Amino acid sequence: MSDLVRLSLSLEKPLYERLEKMVSRRGYTNRSEFVRDMLRRQIVEEEWNANAEVLGTITLIYDHHRRRLGEKLTGLQHEHHKAVLAATHVHLTHHLCAEVILVRDKARHVKALADALGQQKGVLHADLSMASTGRTLE
Amino acid sequence: MSDLVRLSLSLEKPLYERLEKMVSRRGYTNRSEFVRDMLRRQIVEEEWNANAEVLGTITLIYDHHRRRLGEKLTGLQHEHHKAVLAATHVHLTHHLCAEVILVRDKARHVKALADALGQQKGVLHADLSMASTGRTLE
Amino acid sequence: MSDLVRLSLSLEKPLYERLEKMVSRRGYTNRSEFVRDMLRRQIVEEEWNANAEVLGTITLIYDHHRRRLGEKLTGLQHEHHKAVLAATHVHLTHHLCAEVILVRDKARHVKALADALGQQKGVLHADLSMASTGRTLE
Amino acid sequence: MSDLVRLSLSLEKPLYERLEKMVSRRGYTNRSEFVRDMLRRQIVEEEWNANAEVLGTITLIYDHHRRRLGEKLTGLQHEHHKAVLAATHVHLTHHLCAEVILVRDKARHVKALADALGQQKGVLHADLSMASTGRTLE
Repeated sequence: MSDLVRLSLSLEKPLYERLEKMVSRRGYTNRSEFVRDMLRRQIVEEEWNANAEVLGTITLIYDHHRRRLGEKLTGLQHEHHKAVLAATHVHLTHHLCAEVILVRDKARHVKALADALGQQKGVLHADLSMASTGRTLE
Repeated sequence: MSDLVRLSLSLEKPLYERLEKMVSRRGYTNRSEFVRDMLRRQIVEEEWNANAEVLGTITLIYDHHRRRLGEKLTGLQHEHHKAVLAATHVHLTHHLCAEVILVRDKARHVKALADALGQQKGVLHADLSMASTGRTLE
Repeated sequence: MSDLVRLSLSLEKPLYERLEKMVSRRGYTNRSEFVRDMLRRQIVEEEWNANAEVLGTITLIYDHHRRRLGEKLTGLQHEHHKAVLAATHVHLTHHLCAEVILVRDKARHVKALADALGQQKGVLHADLSMASTGRTLE
Repeated sequence: MSDLVRLSLSLEKPLYERLEKMVSRRGYTNRSEFVRDMLRRQIVEEEWNANAEVLGTITLIYDHHRRRLGEKLTGLQHEHHKAVLAATHVHLTHHLCAEVILVRDKARHVKALADALGQQKGVLHADLSMASTGRTLE
């Protein structure tokens, strides 16, 4: 864990009161942790905009009875084997699957892979969740 | 202007350094103002989720040659005349207009009005921008 | 109004039924209009990503008692007078105002102006709503 | 796979041309598949708004050296063991981990679980990706 820096802020009284209410209502143990979480969301957003190395989670819903779809999805992941950290597969119904794929790469590459996977015929849904490699969030 | 409250926070050193960088890169004059802006965005989001009284800006792009469209759009706004604060009209081309409508009402009513306006035939685009009545942001 | 092109699609039966339900539940008069609206949203998104000429609506909430703020906001708009189409001002309380500013310019310029306005001290909220100049939506 | 329904639409000519361009530029094999993807995104959005049974992917970045954090995160997942389908863990650095958790439950419950996990001290980032159980997307 890193050293802590103490800093002070000034807030208008009503804004301060809203902050205290949000901190307690959302179950935070203290105000610093709430501010840290706001900051980290800003950082993650910046990293994706700046095409930094990021972490992305791609969620796919697909019909695994669709001819050769599984093969194609695996093939695409293998072409990016250095970037794909892990993939987890879950059976939803007789023929539907969910797959979550954790990818670490430049933001633009992660987006391109998510698009390529999502466009395969038989993929019913694809979504990309933007996270960070964590090193900038500590 | 309200009284200022002084409060202190602790941040991990790298997180603190990222904060300082964001404050200067985005042109803020000081750190408090940056934190206030993050806070206010949270507050606006909460108000819309809680169906509080909010301010919304509805932007419409439409074809004013479309039969009776102008009439219908005006009619809908009149049904909500207590909520509609102002409407501004701009001519984009020979037959296309943009209209921005400022609305103050419960969040759900503002959304319903935006939907109703957007669904009229001849309306090419409708978007709702979520703001606050300001009283909670000071 | 433009010529109409007739085209046909095939949808899986359950997906078709969901479409029909959405069309009627959201009050659309016909299915084509619903599909057009989905398409136009995609087009607007693409234009902003491609830095095309777009239309943006900037909504500001600010404290007009803040020293010289009105002057600064007007100054910034004048620097972009070719881009700013119209600005409408509404008095919310004794000292709070809302201002909506319609801007037509390259997407990146519109974003930069929204950022510059939002960062002024005394501006409590700034939001940018993304629209199109309409020519690509017809 | 479901039966296909054939349906026809009319689009203004310029809008039709934009559709064809988007279909080819994004690498779709045909226009129907592009329209299906737009439709499915609308359906997923509706399901989350209507608190239907949905699928969500929660991505967490956290510091596993933080005292008892792993325990707490596992504990929270166990309280929802009927909803949690799978969790995958990846080691990012000496002390940072990423965890992706696939959850199937009512939309509101999935959101509450994501909030509870994200608020634990030592969790640096939490994001919820909204998907569907797939049954409504076929």
